[in-house]
Amino acid sequence: MKRIAIDMDEVIADFHPKIVDTWNSHFPQQLSAEELNLFDLHQDSPEQLAELFALVDHPTFFDDLAVIADSQQVIARLSEHYEIFITTAAMLMPSSFNAKFRWLNTHFPAIPHGNIVFCGDKSIINADYMIDDNAINFAGFCGEGILYSAPHNRKVTGYRRAENWQDIATLLL
Amino acid sequence: MKRIAIDMDEVIADFHPKIVDTWNSHFPQQLSAEELNLFDLHQDSPEQLAELFALVDHPTFFDDLAVIADSQQVIARLSEHYEIFITTAAMLMPSSFNAKFRWLNTHFPAIPHGNIVFCGDKSIINADYMIDDNAINFAGFCGEGILYSAPHNRKVTGYRRAENWQDIATLLL
Repeated sequence: MKRIAIDMDEVIADFHPKIVDTWNSHFPQQLSAEELNLFDLHQDSPEQLAELFALVDHPTFFDDLAVIADSQQVIARLSEHYEIFITTAAMLMPSSFNAKFRWLNTHFPAIPHGNIVFCGDKSIINADYMIDDNAINFAGFCGEGILYSAPHNRKVTGYRRAENWQDIATLLL
Repeated sequence: MKRIAIDMDEVIADFHPKIVDTWNSHFPQQLSAEELNLFDLHQDSPEQLAELFALVDHPTFFDDLAVIADSQQVIARLSEHYEIFITTAAMLMPSSFNAKFRWLNTHFPAIPHGNIVFCGDKSIINADYMIDDNAINFAGFCGEGILYSAPHNRKVTGYRRAENWQDIATLLL
């Protein structure tokens, strides 16, 4: 059985709307979801990014993230044909461990705990496919990276791309 | 650069003495380190194992585990020749996440956070070598498993075996 490694934030957990709300509550400059790009911010204003991430680095931040549309249904169908692992870069935000684990238990209870991976450098993952919004995670990955579209990765090329979970179903089912 | 995945409990963190102390504090039957075998207990008395693990499943249990002799020095030397990842089955004991992370920061500060992996099924790990006391973790592993000796694995054959960290140095340096 082939194996799919699936990222959490921006792929199954809707991280971006909450980060935009957090930004707008904290900074006077009000930004839309399209305007707030964390990758650009990392380049242009690392101090503001650090300030924002200090707010994100809270034990409950991840608890109430919405589920990305259709991810539950498509993952349930994929699990009939593939081994499903959740592989999230939680090591970069250690205060998120418990909330991320609770969130997965709540929204994806069929995924065994043994198939959840909290990591950092995702080249450690041994899978056939990796669905991720961050192409940097495909560097050194032994399988095929499938890029889950997000505003920050619009210009990235070189990978099969999914705009949504129905695209994933078309690609992999 | 080849990559080594290193387990925590019983390999770098001295889990067993604390579990023996916990047993002896909780149950009237007093056992030595050699007598308490969690794998046998799993077969013979799963209720007692569950009771014991309820005590282990505490947010601070892992904080004060001793460091296994020579692991720090040998891992420092290995890191000059290999990529080092710590791969621990923390998903089976989610309350341990934060204590395990703190413990690694305290005792192995040179290991980047990105090289720490909390997982369950270790066949997800992509590495050349895995040093582990539990041979079940070598099933489906893409590299070579090196068995770190512990009382519970004395009868296991089929793998190169290390009695201590000096043996690891001899095998891999």
